[in-house]
Amino acid sequence: MTERYNVTEFYDGLVKHGLIVPVGVPGAFGRGAVFEDVLERFNGLISQLSAADGAEHFTFPPIISRKVLERVHYLDSFPHLCGAVYSFFGKELQAKQLAERVNGGQDWGDMLGMTEVVLNPAACYPVYPSFTGTVPAKGRLVTMLNWVYRHEPSLEPTRMQSFRVREFVRVGTPDQVVGWRDMWLQRGLTLLQSLGLPARSDVASDPFFGRSGKMLAVSQKEQKLKFEVVVPVISETDPTAVCSFNFHQEHFGTTFEIRTTDGQTANTACLGFGLERIVMALFRTHGFVPADWPAEVRKQIWG
Amino acid sequence: MTERYNVTEFYDGLVKHGLIVPVGVPGAFGRGAVFEDVLERFNGLISQLSAADGAEHFTFPPIISRKVLERVHYLDSFPHLCGAVYSFFGKELQAKQLAERVNGGQDWGDMLGMTEVVLNPAACYPVYPSFTGTVPAKGRLVTMLNWVYRHEPSLEPTRMQSFRVREFVRVGTPDQVVGWRDMWLQRGLTLLQSLGLPARSDVASDPFFGRSGKMLAVSQKEQKLKFEVVVPVISETDPTAVCSFNFHQEHFGTTFEIRTTDGQTANTACLGFGLERIVMALFRTHGFVPADWPAEVRKQIWG
Repeated sequence: MTERYNVTEFYDGLVKHGLIVPVGVPGAFGRGAVFEDVLERFNGLISQLSAADGAEHFTFPPIISRKVLERVHYLDSFPHLCGAVYSFFGKELQAKQLAERVNGGQDWGDMLGMTEVVLNPAACYPVYPSFTGTVPAKGRLVTMLNWVYRHEPSLEPTRMQSFRVREFVRVGTPDQVVGWRDMWLQRGLTLLQSLGLPARSDVASDPFFGRSGKMLAVSQKEQKLKFEVVVPVISETDPTAVCSFNFHQEHFGTTFEIRTTDGQTANTACLGFGLERIVMALFRTHGFVPADWPAEVRKQIWG
Repeated sequence: MTERYNVTEFYDGLVKHGLIVPVGVPGAFGRGAVFEDVLERFNGLISQLSAADGAEHFTFPPIISRKVLERVHYLDSFPHLCGAVYSFFGKELQAKQLAERVNGGQDWGDMLGMTEVVLNPAACYPVYPSFTGTVPAKGRLVTMLNWVYRHEPSLEPTRMQSFRVREFVRVGTPDQVVGWRDMWLQRGLTLLQSLGLPARSDVASDPFFGRSGKMLAVSQKEQKLKFEVVVPVISETDPTAVCSFNFHQEHFGTTFEIRTTDGQTANTACLGFGLERIVMALFRTHGFVPADWPAEVRKQIWG
């Protein structure tokens, strides 16, 4: 039986066509001009599709306050994925020792100390602290395009350490938030299918750490708190998640003291499009040369 | 005597007008929609201005291989500015201890280990390893827009931990590289002055660490290896560097074995526009409300 999906061949094809540029560490490759063009235009389609929703637009840097990660209990669930930023706090003598270690090819990890920032693991995290207080009766709707980090080095091209997520966050009553999530689940699916991608949605769970994490994942699925849209990119049987839809209930509302006008703790939900993964799904489905893509797909992306 | 330039007032003005969003740590604020619009349009002006140059376009993530930082001797000169990424490598028991420390408000910096990636401190770094080999007779010209990191937390808004640089890199013979640098120095100055900014250029030096760093800075200035374009943003007497032009001689050519067609080690130069700083210079010079900016500036930015 021929395997239509081959991880190495797909990675090599992306490199050979100049779509990505290897950099010596897994999951941190550069993106070429054609890859970026598809990514920006797909992001533009999302903006068009949601223009009438009137979301507020923000951009956050790839780093966030370490306190945010601590307050949302990220380290309880995903310690293995975190990326904390360390720097050098010493004086002349230590600096000399550090340089000697580095240039002598020795370990130097114990010579740095933790800073007040960490890499942002989820595009929506930096915005929640700014919601503290009472949101308007219609709630809040925010969109962002941020770089996120996950420490999961892999040669599998869709599993990146650093990638961009186009995210939307809704704050309000449970009805407002869940209705909005359901609307976007259908909208996202329709958008991806209209680009010729064999996308489908499914209940999903987060990659919680360890044995207790397995129970958290089961509970998350039972409560249908997370949905994903998946597309086969490197495997037919294990399709790649390209969009994620998360209902947080009162998790962030409680942590950051966000209230609705009736005095209740606000509910939140977020959804994110994994932009690099969607671009890769397009190259996997339609081929490495956009000029050869189906006319209707080209028309939708390039107008 | 009235100080026209006031750091706190400028920061507060940016926040009050929704141009930036505080996040609890210095130099990591979010950017609002109007701020981003100006930034993207200024970046578009650079693209227009350089379109005929035919640069190859890449995008790199905010992280790069730690080996690149080690090989270019970044830690010798700027240990205090580095940002290395640490993550958790333990099993169940250590994960439990980590969570207890985090949730108990105790230090947890010693529970993580160094990964193979660091934050990218200069937009051009990730591209040099891809030049290894012999460049064409006309050399190479590359452009990128990357997020960079510097560990220098400050309440002064132009001194950010994380910001974007629109960068160009030229590889070739010394004449090719220096001629190109000189052309861009004038081009960058003209562009900024055409936007009503009181920009001027000057010989400059990098913020090398420690006592020996002072000598490196003097030598760099004597050899005129670095120029900056500066604009008053938070001080008249200490204007802010918004563009940087660096001639590396054979530094990267030697490190990454880059050659010209005559078999010589290639020379390189790079130049970068500090996008957030230029946007701030525009708000400082023309006011916090773009609708009130001079008509000729508005026309150039929004067409």
